[in-house]
Amino acid sequence: MTVKSTNITRTEHRIDREVRWRESGHRGGVLWFTGLSGSGKTTLAFELERRLFEKNYRVYVLDGDNVRHGLNSDLGFSPQDREENIRRIGEVAALFADAGIIVISAFISPYRRDRDQARQAAPGMFHEIHMSANLDICEARDPKGLYKKARHGDIADFTGISAPYESPETPELVLDTGGLTIEESLGRLMDYVLHNFRTD
Amino acid sequence: MTVKSTNITRTEHRIDREVRWRESGHRGGVLWFTGLSGSGKTTLAFELERRLFEKNYRVYVLDGDNVRHGLNSDLGFSPQDREENIRRIGEVAALFADAGIIVISAFISPYRRDRDQARQAAPGMFHEIHMSANLDICEARDPKGLYKKARHGDIADFTGISAPYESPETPELVLDTGGLTIEESLGRLMDYVLHNFRTD
Repeated sequence: MTVKSTNITRTEHRIDREVRWRESGHRGGVLWFTGLSGSGKTTLAFELERRLFEKNYRVYVLDGDNVRHGLNSDLGFSPQDREENIRRIGEVAALFADAGIIVISAFISPYRRDRDQARQAAPGMFHEIHMSANLDICEARDPKGLYKKARHGDIADFTGISAPYESPETPELVLDTGGLTIEESLGRLMDYVLHNFRTD
Repeated sequence: MTVKSTNITRTEHRIDREVRWRESGHRGGVLWFTGLSGSGKTTLAFELERRLFEKNYRVYVLDGDNVRHGLNSDLGFSPQDREENIRRIGEVAALFADAGIIVISAFISPYRRDRDQARQAAPGMFHEIHMSANLDICEARDPKGLYKKARHGDIADFTGISAPYESPETPELVLDTGGLTIEESLGRLMDYVLHNFRTD
């Protein structure tokens, strides 16, 4: 029994991040997409994921679909719940980054304070990427018909219409997704990742 | 603009799990360790992680250290908070499994209902592994001195002393970590993973 206990103390430590990075050929980190509904976050997230995956990157997208129905299914849309929603996403993203994965988070995340909290959860591994298409363009696109509903008053506290969006002040990358084509935005995202995440 | 919107709809889908598995050479899934404090969960989790990593598996440990201080830092030790603690861990583990990773969860998780909920979060990818060392053995080991404190009444609701542990009824694997050496337990865990997670 004594020998076993000795073993227990000796072996309890994690794999170093640098060792993980060497193995996978790239760093882990958080690509935190932020921008209005319709600014291209989800489209770009999934297409970036696909392209990185094809280049053998370890990559995963967190979005409303896999977070709101599971981890955050207990949260509604009150101010406190929205804040907690983003807090948890930031913490989960930090765990993925720690595991050596490039995690792409695709949420409006309209408040600076919440995004800063997410940054603090993943020190040195957080990359804030602002999809800066303006309201007029996003509302004209309205891919899910949400702006129309918000204008009719069917959605309360809708970012850009009846709730504020606080633009990032010093994001790592800004993509004017109102002016750039999807292909151009993807090119810049790929360049950014190749430049910032490669370890070789 | 119309063309961009068309693109948006076309490209929004995830990478299939099977495609991820082919790429990494193994399935993703949850190895849910459960057992009393001192039953060997953390020791075995980190040593299993190391051995799988050395065989090029994508593997990550969730434990109190990386979950309680981040994602679940808002939770205390009330019955509701303990339940929510395990619920969130189950959901995060499911996200990791979906990302193609073998995630090892090392928490006492004493209640059947909570573990069953975690199982439901990762359908077909959940492996409940019972570290079945009994109370006498765990208390004699007492690697962190917690049983001593609990016996002195310094820790309330301590599993095995002043709160129940509900053994799994149909776990995928039972390791009698009271009788087996660490090396023997690790051998069985490695066999289990090689048998259940390889895709080639």
